[in-house]
Amino acid sequence: MRLRKHWIAAAMAVAAMPAMAQPITLERFGSFHVGGRQVEITGKPVIEYTPTVGGAPLRIDPNGTYLVGQMYARFMEPAPQRGQAPLMLWHGAYLTGVTWETTPDGREGWEHFFLRRGWTTYVTDAVERGRSGTAMSPDIFGLPIYLPTANPWERFRIGDGAGSHARGTLLPGNQFPATPEHYQSFMRQVVPRNLGTDEDVLNAYVALLERVGPSVVVAHSQGGAFAWQVAQRRPDLFRALVLVEPAGTGQAAQAATLKDIPTLLIYGDYVEADPRWSVIRRNARRFSDMIRAAGGQVEDVDLPSRGIPGNSHMLMMDRNGDAVAQLVQDWLAARGLWQ
Amino acid sequence: MRLRKHWIAAAMAVAAMPAMAQPITLERFGSFHVGGRQVEITGKPVIEYTPTVGGAPLRIDPNGTYLVGQMYARFMEPAPQRGQAPLMLWHGAYLTGVTWETTPDGREGWEHFFLRRGWTTYVTDAVERGRSGTAMSPDIFGLPIYLPTANPWERFRIGDGAGSHARGTLLPGNQFPATPEHYQSFMRQVVPRNLGTDEDVLNAYVALLERVGPSVVVAHSQGGAFAWQVAQRRPDLFRALVLVEPAGTGQAAQAATLKDIPTLLIYGDYVEADPRWSVIRRNARRFSDMIRAAGGQVEDVDLPSRGIPGNSHMLMMDRNGDAVAQLVQDWLAARGLWQ
Repeated sequence: MRLRKHWIAAAMAVAAMPAMAQPITLERFGSFHVGGRQVEITGKPVIEYTPTVGGAPLRIDPNGTYLVGQMYARFMEPAPQRGQAPLMLWHGAYLTGVTWETTPDGREGWEHFFLRRGWTTYVTDAVERGRSGTAMSPDIFGLPIYLPTANPWERFRIGDGAGSHARGTLLPGNQFPATPEHYQSFMRQVVPRNLGTDEDVLNAYVALLERVGPSVVVAHSQGGAFAWQVAQRRPDLFRALVLVEPAGTGQAAQAATLKDIPTLLIYGDYVEADPRWSVIRRNARRFSDMIRAAGGQVEDVDLPSRGIPGNSHMLMMDRNGDAVAQLVQDWLAARGLWQ
Repeated sequence: MRLRKHWIAAAMAVAAMPAMAQPITLERFGSFHVGGRQVEITGKPVIEYTPTVGGAPLRIDPNGTYLVGQMYARFMEPAPQRGQAPLMLWHGAYLTGVTWETTPDGREGWEHFFLRRGWTTYVTDAVERGRSGTAMSPDIFGLPIYLPTANPWERFRIGDGAGSHARGTLLPGNQFPATPEHYQSFMRQVVPRNLGTDEDVLNAYVALLERVGPSVVVAHSQGGAFAWQVAQRRPDLFRALVLVEPAGTGQAAQAATLKDIPTLLIYGDYVEADPRWSVIRRNARRFSDMIRAAGGQVEDVDLPSRGIPGNSHMLMMDRNGDAVAQLVQDWLAARGLWQ
């Protein structure tokens, strides 16, 4: 047991070396969609238009059967493989899988970080966002909500509170790449979201895990709340849960369903001073205590207490994002999920 | 000259061998967004909701500045490189870059085909679709249009005309993977589109090419119409144009701007019998003649005449899609763009 731990530590030291410029070999890569359900739409007027110069008039009858609630997933399978299960990267609200693919200042994302260490990665776009497509609104998916530029700056603990985007001021020591150019790069990734899609989202995540098999799920913000809820429906499909500032919890009455899933919670800086994030973390800690009371393991990491200060809510994009990824990597390796 | 052609032919024979199960080495891969413009939204009511179990109430003021019209691009750079320019894959209406990533029956897509032959590939989601996000509707981008299940079956030359989806009947010899399960896989990829976004789409493609540099552009359907129009604005950024059933043309008055861009047009089967596609092809042929009259080169391939029958409008997804890709590859190699 001791020996194995030392071997893992040595292997980790090698894997932790800078590898940004190294080529990477893939055994397979590709994408697919999972899930969805059929709905009928009736009573809508026919639409007629002529698309593009040199096209021909088009008549679309929007009445009929639709497939809605499907989800897009893209996978990359590196060689050699060292992850002992597929590693899923689930994004948060108003975002897509791009969360994991790059950073606002153009560095490699967490997808690269874990792929370079031999994990097969799955990057998804949650239902109703990105390449998962959306459905007729408000008929099927309710109303979409759009985020103006100032909103994430003030809500994701980048700027120092209300009015900070107009002032251009940051929380002190903030690690988010927040030059006007970099923040604009981040805002290009932001997509609208619909309310009333939670059940479709949960069903699609279950369909994904049923297709791929038991996985390590790394989930951010709204994705973290979904991950806890999906894990309550199908705990057998989770090898571990890494929840990066989850925006909610699972169902309290079923907390015990999570007792066999090793779980890591990670929070960045400035949480206690933020009126919403302090409440959200308090809820997650109360829920974690319920899981622990049922015999489960939930480790709760406050990054500043571990000597990693300055993290915004978008900590995988922060300048020190790789240090946080390394903490996740070490935690997974210590549980035998990476060899 | 002769010798070089023989060498290319020999190299092509090697590259044409089945390579589906071979690992692939990437020098780099990643994604980014380009383009966009700022708009102001005023006079909207504030939205309040509590997201997810265990969350905290959220108040979003949708008034303010938005960044709209940006575009998502994902690139993969293989080693060794044999393409003499980046190869762009631009999708059609109601679709995203997923068009090129896979097929409805789960085979590798054209992205794999060209990457495996040493091309650096760029797969994009056109403005207002997929990971490019969309903008407030109808305020900014007009109304979105959604496609019911029967529409592409009957419009993309899969089924034999009106009512064929309900009948479950196909055009004879059709190569589209059209079992109910495979067609459902295709419909999962379909996304809504907005009218009134053409100028944003064109600007974003220009921004992409300005960032990446002169490229080979392979474009499908609506993407083909955009490609011709982008090329008229910036012919210096095109090494070659491959238009797979373009849904429209460039501006007739400026046809001569395209005279220095080697161009390949490709059409599948059943075109003449289709009331819309026969018109669209006639328009493209008339436009091609204008380019030729100005001294340009446009090669026009009717696949059935080349012994490749049965292709739907979605020919990169058809069961014989690799034969069409090989035709593109040979055409590019013959022009010195692949060595």
